[in-house]
Amino acid sequence: MIVTVTLNAALDVTYEVEALIPHGSHRVTGVPHRRAGGKGVNVARVLAALGRPALVTGFAGGPTGRAIRDDLRAAGLADALVPVADDSRRTLTVVSRRDGDATVFNEPGATVSTAEWDGFVDRFPRLVQDAHVVVLSGSLPPGLPSDAYADLIRASHQAGAATVLDTSGSALLDALSAGPDVVKPNAAELLEATGRQDVARAAADLRTHGAKAVVVSQGPEGLLAVTRTGSWHAVPPERLSGNPTGAGDACVAALAAGLADGLTWEAVLREAVALSAAAVPCPLAGDFDARLHHRFRTHVALEKIHAAHTY
Amino acid sequence: MIVTVTLNAALDVTYEVEALIPHGSHRVTGVPHRRAGGKGVNVARVLAALGRPALVTGFAGGPTGRAIRDDLRAAGLADALVPVADDSRRTLTVVSRRDGDATVFNEPGATVSTAEWDGFVDRFPRLVQDAHVVVLSGSLPPGLPSDAYADLIRASHQAGAATVLDTSGSALLDALSAGPDVVKPNAAELLEATGRQDVARAAADLRTHGAKAVVVSQGPEGLLAVTRTGSWHAVPPERLSGNPTGAGDACVAALAAGLADGLTWEAVLREAVALSAAAVPCPLAGDFDARLHHRFRTHVALEKIHAAHTY
Repeated sequence: MIVTVTLNAALDVTYEVEALIPHGSHRVTGVPHRRAGGKGVNVARVLAALGRPALVTGFAGGPTGRAIRDDLRAAGLADALVPVADDSRRTLTVVSRRDGDATVFNEPGATVSTAEWDGFVDRFPRLVQDAHVVVLSGSLPPGLPSDAYADLIRASHQAGAATVLDTSGSALLDALSAGPDVVKPNAAELLEATGRQDVARAAADLRTHGAKAVVVSQGPEGLLAVTRTGSWHAVPPERLSGNPTGAGDACVAALAAGLADGLTWEAVLREAVALSAAAVPCPLAGDFDARLHHRFRTHVALEKIHAAHTY
Repeated sequence: MIVTVTLNAALDVTYEVEALIPHGSHRVTGVPHRRAGGKGVNVARVLAALGRPALVTGFAGGPTGRAIRDDLRAAGLADALVPVADDSRRTLTVVSRRDGDATVFNEPGATVSTAEWDGFVDRFPRLVQDAHVVVLSGSLPPGLPSDAYADLIRASHQAGAATVLDTSGSALLDALSAGPDVVKPNAAELLEATGRQDVARAAADLRTHGAKAVVVSQGPEGLLAVTRTGSWHAVPPERLSGNPTGAGDACVAALAAGLADGLTWEAVLREAVALSAAAVPCPLAGDFDARLHHRFRTHVALEKIHAAHTY
């Protein structure tokens, strides 16, 4: 069983307008699209579509938290979100009908009190007791210590689960000492967190600080994986453009499923690239194109990298 | 007692961002500001600040409806909103810190079913049984007939209450046959609804179709009132710029209070202009500057217009 943790779960709202005019007044056409979001929720959505139901946990509070939970139920996703007093956040994407372009607004999120966080940490071992893999995704909400993920990674390992971490900044750096099995930053997040100019060097840094494997998503250029048993560059069969958030979350879903099944790194990476590429054309993170996924699976180019190039 | 009706009540949300960049990704700084809104709610807020509590009715549904009701309670406003199955709307104002400019997004609103509307109409006579004045404000939510306000105006008059109507388009035109005591369009709404080029002629049209008095808000130029007993132009003491929504709702609050107290038109109009002008500098509709209000009350210029100019 896979558990996905989304400490900063969100209600993802999409407004369609004729055209975005700064300082204008806009009629939102039709009913705004709303669905439960946050990276871990998107990962669970991808896993469910692959026939592999996951348990969704993290925090949800207030009216927005209720809307998130209602949507999880409607989507058939198992909801183990923990209540907080503060209202959960929304992300808003304003899509212009005229040019299809999207403008995004991210609320900071519900503040989690020390008592609420302590309660979550206490409850967490029971939530992951049957998990083979625990996925920890996204930013930390206001109020949490920057090493929050380290606590959850340690508890997951104690329960016998492997861990996949997809976050950035200090939330990423301060989790490494707990030894996450896979960390999946994108290239920009990796360079920003490490202060490096070179992706391979930066990935090696994360391993030095405790990550067992680092899988860097590089958009249309695919994935760079640096692991104990080797390093690979995995390249998608076509250059696609579209939704980078959805592609990253699909990648994490594939990594988690591969870890749960004990696949080889080669098999995991082929699937991660194929699933990411199949998610790119979908406007909503958590969706992927099943036909593209099927077609891409056998067409990922995998290049083993010589040890000297991966430090 | 004054009852304010807001059939399309909203949760007014304000996002502060560093600068609005079309097609960019924005971090919303701080906690988004949220409060119950919709024109009738704003009118009730102004009345409450004048020491004259009003009863707020209309529709509220879903998580957003609950947030609206929670905020009414927090503000000490009497909540007689009627539940609907659909989720209430939000309005979103994105304020840029860099230039202070606002970009507005209006959701269309909760759809009201025929059964829900019939239930509201059935319940309405009890809601207004003790009312001296009923204020009907704002757009109609999806699902309502365009003559919805006519039904409520007739029921209000049967209960012995006077009525003030502030709406636009067909919702305004199709309410006139019920004989509202005062209608308060702004100049643009009035010209758009009547197809006229001239405000005084357009106001006379509305009276021809059933409105007993028409008070047109003309922004910094003040109010034009066309009534059975005379016509006036009421001009604020200073040219102020700021929030036109807030000014309109404050004007309606003054009209309702004046009707409830049986004031002369001259007294009502002075107060309406003073209160509107005191609301203009406030960024949130429903607020006004009490010191400015006090200062302006004695400085409104009132000009009686010769009958020949008001048709």
